[in-house]
Amino acid sequence: MSSAAAKVALIGAGRMGRVHGLSAAANQRLHLAWLAEPRSDAAAALAAELGCRTASLADVLADPEVRGVIVAASTDAHLDLTLQALRAGKAVFCEKPLDLDPARLKAHAAELAAPAAPLLVAFNRRFDPHFRALKAKIDAGAIGALETLNIVSHDPAPPPPGFVATSGGLFRDFTIHDFDTAAWLMDEAPSEVFAFAECLVDPTIGAAGDVDTARLVLRFPSGRLCTISNTRRSGYGYDQRIEAYGAKGAAMAGNPRLSTVVAASRAGARADAIHPGFASRYLPSYRAEMEHFADVLAGEAAPAAGYAESIAALALAEAALRSLASGASEAVAA
Amino acid sequence: MSSAAAKVALIGAGRMGRVHGLSAAANQRLHLAWLAEPRSDAAAALAAELGCRTASLADVLADPEVRGVIVAASTDAHLDLTLQALRAGKAVFCEKPLDLDPARLKAHAAELAAPAAPLLVAFNRRFDPHFRALKAKIDAGAIGALETLNIVSHDPAPPPPGFVATSGGLFRDFTIHDFDTAAWLMDEAPSEVFAFAECLVDPTIGAAGDVDTARLVLRFPSGRLCTISNTRRSGYGYDQRIEAYGAKGAAMAGNPRLSTVVAASRAGARADAIHPGFASRYLPSYRAEMEHFADVLAGEAAPAAGYAESIAALALAEAALRSLASGASEAVAA
Amino acid sequence: MSSAAAKVALIGAGRMGRVHGLSAAANQRLHLAWLAEPRSDAAAALAAELGCRTASLADVLADPEVRGVIVAASTDAHLDLTLQALRAGKAVFCEKPLDLDPARLKAHAAELAAPAAPLLVAFNRRFDPHFRALKAKIDAGAIGALETLNIVSHDPAPPPPGFVATSGGLFRDFTIHDFDTAAWLMDEAPSEVFAFAECLVDPTIGAAGDVDTARLVLRFPSGRLCTISNTRRSGYGYDQRIEAYGAKGAAMAGNPRLSTVVAASRAGARADAIHPGFASRYLPSYRAEMEHFADVLAGEAAPAAGYAESIAALALAEAALRSLASGASEAVAA
Amino acid sequence: MSSAAAKVALIGAGRMGRVHGLSAAANQRLHLAWLAEPRSDAAAALAAELGCRTASLADVLADPEVRGVIVAASTDAHLDLTLQALRAGKAVFCEKPLDLDPARLKAHAAELAAPAAPLLVAFNRRFDPHFRALKAKIDAGAIGALETLNIVSHDPAPPPPGFVATSGGLFRDFTIHDFDTAAWLMDEAPSEVFAFAECLVDPTIGAAGDVDTARLVLRFPSGRLCTISNTRRSGYGYDQRIEAYGAKGAAMAGNPRLSTVVAASRAGARADAIHPGFASRYLPSYRAEMEHFADVLAGEAAPAAGYAESIAALALAEAALRSLASGASEAVAA
Repeated sequence: MSSAAAKVALIGAGRMGRVHGLSAAANQRLHLAWLAEPRSDAAAALAAELGCRTASLADVLADPEVRGVIVAASTDAHLDLTLQALRAGKAVFCEKPLDLDPARLKAHAAELAAPAAPLLVAFNRRFDPHFRALKAKIDAGAIGALETLNIVSHDPAPPPPGFVATSGGLFRDFTIHDFDTAAWLMDEAPSEVFAFAECLVDPTIGAAGDVDTARLVLRFPSGRLCTISNTRRSGYGYDQRIEAYGAKGAAMAGNPRLSTVVAASRAGARADAIHPGFASRYLPSYRAEMEHFADVLAGEAAPAAGYAESIAALALAEAALRSLASGASEAVAA
Repeated sequence: MSSAAAKVALIGAGRMGRVHGLSAAANQRLHLAWLAEPRSDAAAALAAELGCRTASLADVLADPEVRGVIVAASTDAHLDLTLQALRAGKAVFCEKPLDLDPARLKAHAAELAAPAAPLLVAFNRRFDPHFRALKAKIDAGAIGALETLNIVSHDPAPPPPGFVATSGGLFRDFTIHDFDTAAWLMDEAPSEVFAFAECLVDPTIGAAGDVDTARLVLRFPSGRLCTISNTRRSGYGYDQRIEAYGAKGAAMAGNPRLSTVVAASRAGARADAIHPGFASRYLPSYRAEMEHFADVLAGEAAPAAGYAESIAALALAEAALRSLASGASEAVAA
Repeated sequence: MSSAAAKVALIGAGRMGRVHGLSAAANQRLHLAWLAEPRSDAAAALAAELGCRTASLADVLADPEVRGVIVAASTDAHLDLTLQALRAGKAVFCEKPLDLDPARLKAHAAELAAPAAPLLVAFNRRFDPHFRALKAKIDAGAIGALETLNIVSHDPAPPPPGFVATSGGLFRDFTIHDFDTAAWLMDEAPSEVFAFAECLVDPTIGAAGDVDTARLVLRFPSGRLCTISNTRRSGYGYDQRIEAYGAKGAAMAGNPRLSTVVAASRAGARADAIHPGFASRYLPSYRAEMEHFADVLAGEAAPAAGYAESIAALALAEAALRSLASGASEAVAA
Repeated sequence: MSSAAAKVALIGAGRMGRVHGLSAAANQRLHLAWLAEPRSDAAAALAAELGCRTASLADVLADPEVRGVIVAASTDAHLDLTLQALRAGKAVFCEKPLDLDPARLKAHAAELAAPAAPLLVAFNRRFDPHFRALKAKIDAGAIGALETLNIVSHDPAPPPPGFVATSGGLFRDFTIHDFDTAAWLMDEAPSEVFAFAECLVDPTIGAAGDVDTARLVLRFPSGRLCTISNTRRSGYGYDQRIEAYGAKGAAMAGNPRLSTVVAASRAGARADAIHPGFASRYLPSYRAEMEHFADVLAGEAAPAAGYAESIAALALAEAALRSLASGASEAVAA
């Protein structure tokens, strides 16, 4: 890292803690100094891998040299940790969601909407190079006025037992990325949503009160439309695609493959597999997102997404849940 | 043609009359003998192109050697012509739709559901080699149990002025193919439909009371789901694709291109265009459909689609229209 | 067929006789009246399939209404049949090669180079829609000045025993298409050729004195270059591709697939197979070639290839054989 | 980097010095401590970017903690620097070629073939993930016995003036990668080579006595064959592809694209561009190559290529040059 690197700390040594910690450690403009995690074994192991030291949350927040905090603890702790860090004057990179409960977020609207330090909520699709290339093409007018979107977002395999209970459900946990992506690409907040959703894949998901297969349709105030296809189990890898249709043509962003190798036999020509999961599929987006946080810390960029985007995406998830119950399209709460 | 070719007649010298007439003339197992069309100039021109003779409808139906009649007149005449031909003991190949009004169809249910001679309604997607290959793959278990479908059906450019008024509107005229395709691939009739639709493309379509852009979601009694994407103007050709998702993987049928040529420049690699319209895109399906009619005439096949499929597809269109009005999902009438 | 169709006769009821006979029978501008074939069983069977009558060669040539003769007998009879037909004033469509022996051809140079009736030698690659689209792109300047070509021409599986003995060998039988294609696309006759060739696939081919795997390089007087890759057994279908490289970019013509279906699994995404052999792969080119013969008969086109192209392609095959023996590049005989 | 990182030094601050320096700096298992470069401005700038310090060559070699040296100076200094470093007991990562003159190399055969410390010569194609995936597929038997290769290696644009003079010419500078790749994939050293080569692209290259467009054919002792296509100016980016043909099928490794975005218009569907040059195209291979050097330093791997591979590739270049002069295939010197 360069001598001017910004000192940052990581909170959380779980799956996403490791993902964001590796991005921070690899970033030449950040100096990942501290890892705060109550489970000392997990803390020690990840700190060794990241080449940083462990510390208590209190010590991290008390360190005047720490400029940014990466919040990657369990979802239910995101909001409190973010508020504590902001109050300590630290810029925050918070893994999504900021919180699963819009009411809880709104209770802190003043602190979150105009935060004392920059607040970046990690909607990582916005940093994926393929989706950014798609947006650049749209913004450059390559397909004329954007009219409709078809988003496919398919998980490779169902989450482990127990995940569903704390996840907030398919719409708040998984579709929320697609909600944010739709608004980001359309540059407009959807006004109505309709959802069909079922449990077709894994009965334990249904038993936990959730769904695993969904088709949603969004309507925007401009009359433009968007479909979202979700499943918790694709059977063929982590499928993340977007089709954008405009007045002059269309543009699609597809899945990078593990290699360019194609094997030809009498049965056809088989291209290599797509990525097996989010960690490798979105590695470039996680790296770019952390680079954006470095920009934010350097005063070179405003956070790409924060409180407003979090509230907006949650409002879509809430409307989708209401639609499931009512069987009708539901207006998205302002 | 072979000496055992079945004698058939064509009714109608319009756009679809020419399409089906060329298929019949090219089929070695059919002997296209007559063309009946009240506009004598059009009749003479097409008869010359097809190498057949003109005749009145009455003469055609009175010819005892005529075994089959191809009904390709204007939509509002389909039902009456079909009934007349069936009553004359002729097998009928009827361009879709059999009629735009379910009530009119149901008024003749007895004659149409168990017709005196075979009745084939031309849902041509069922004969497209790509969609058939997709169905064969699904039926062979290649993707496990089929769970969801995403259908994209985009017209290249808006229809000419005046077309909308007699078309029955987007759902009855265009989406109807997708409704039939969904039921055919799922091997199950959808039970609910939701639709968002707008006029984003051509204000004259809106002025005529129709929509030109739609996103629909179908639910099947098994809980399976299907999206349909429609536009009247793609800007990039006639886009006809189906994605099928199952328990073990997915299969997609895409667009054949005008050639396999790819040109590489600094800007990227450009594959050749897709077909500009239905006539060339679906030429193989029209040919295969006529071959199927030859099979039907030879007693080697039962019609792939008839009254029941026509009623089912229309019921979906009606439910979609009700959904547009209600903003809710609508049950499909039995 | 139309009433103005040109009356033609087919000579030969073997594999290529059937291919070209079907093209002629399907062509509305041709009236395939006669089939001449000494083996009466084969003649009767094919004539029934084609809907034409059998006749002796003498009767065919004596029929004043016959305007064209399609020569598709065994290779060693091509030249004599062609000469007889030309002398009878009939236009000739001759399956390639006109003859395997340049000396024999040159002995009739006067009659063949300026024939009494049009002489078309069926280098069918010139009529393939993909290769034509490639040539059109090159000719339109899309890749700038054409500099190099890479041609891949791979047979799916070795020919049956006994074929090699009469085939003339790999270069005269198979590579000859690629030699013609190279000259056609470059619009220049190659001046030098080098060949490496081996028997890697089928020892019986080697035992018959032939090779089954080859890599050739052609140099043109302009300094431009071309590679040709050949095998008698691809293991994955009939692979026919051309890559063209120019001063501003490149263009490639690839293999059409049996359908557009792609199946995705954990192992990757498998596109459908390419064609299993020449008959289906080149069906559109055979049809287009026969349409070209109809143009020639109608006086609307001069034959796309005849004696000069036959001599030129054979001269390349001869030079390639000399190169195999000498281990050096060999000049192509004028 | 981890505390157990191996201390290494970089020699050379030019284009390839920066490429390999960035790889070393990003590698957690290496500690890039020193940069030695006589031009002090260039040294200071690159050292700042890499976060290391500058030193003289003598000081680097005298540092007992330095375990490895990365030689990335000008080509004519590679051999002397490598020998000095090996004599100082340092493992060496040497940018290819080790030297352009086989005689010079052979004069030090004893020191280089069985070096006092590990010697890795950077034939980076061996580390490209796509080519490695191709080799893995071949080695796994996916295409049966490997029979032939077609290698396409096209530079995007001619090198700057002056480069040719010191490059050793197309075969020693550029094709040398393809020579190594062919031997690596075939697992056999070619025995004969034939080359056609021309100056079609840039007259200044011809004026400097070099060629810019080539087609080569290699024969292996087993009779297997390989073509190599080279140009100094593709016009469409840096094109690096390999096709491998075997007894049961084929496998191809293609070009990764800048993104997965495809834009569809009436003119066709345009995929994003391939990489504009080697630096980004082969970034993953440079990273993997440095990781391999870390393995070598850790005693976990023997160098993938060294003196023997350097001599073998140069011998092919020499034979290709002789072929150009003789017009015949030339045996490769043992």
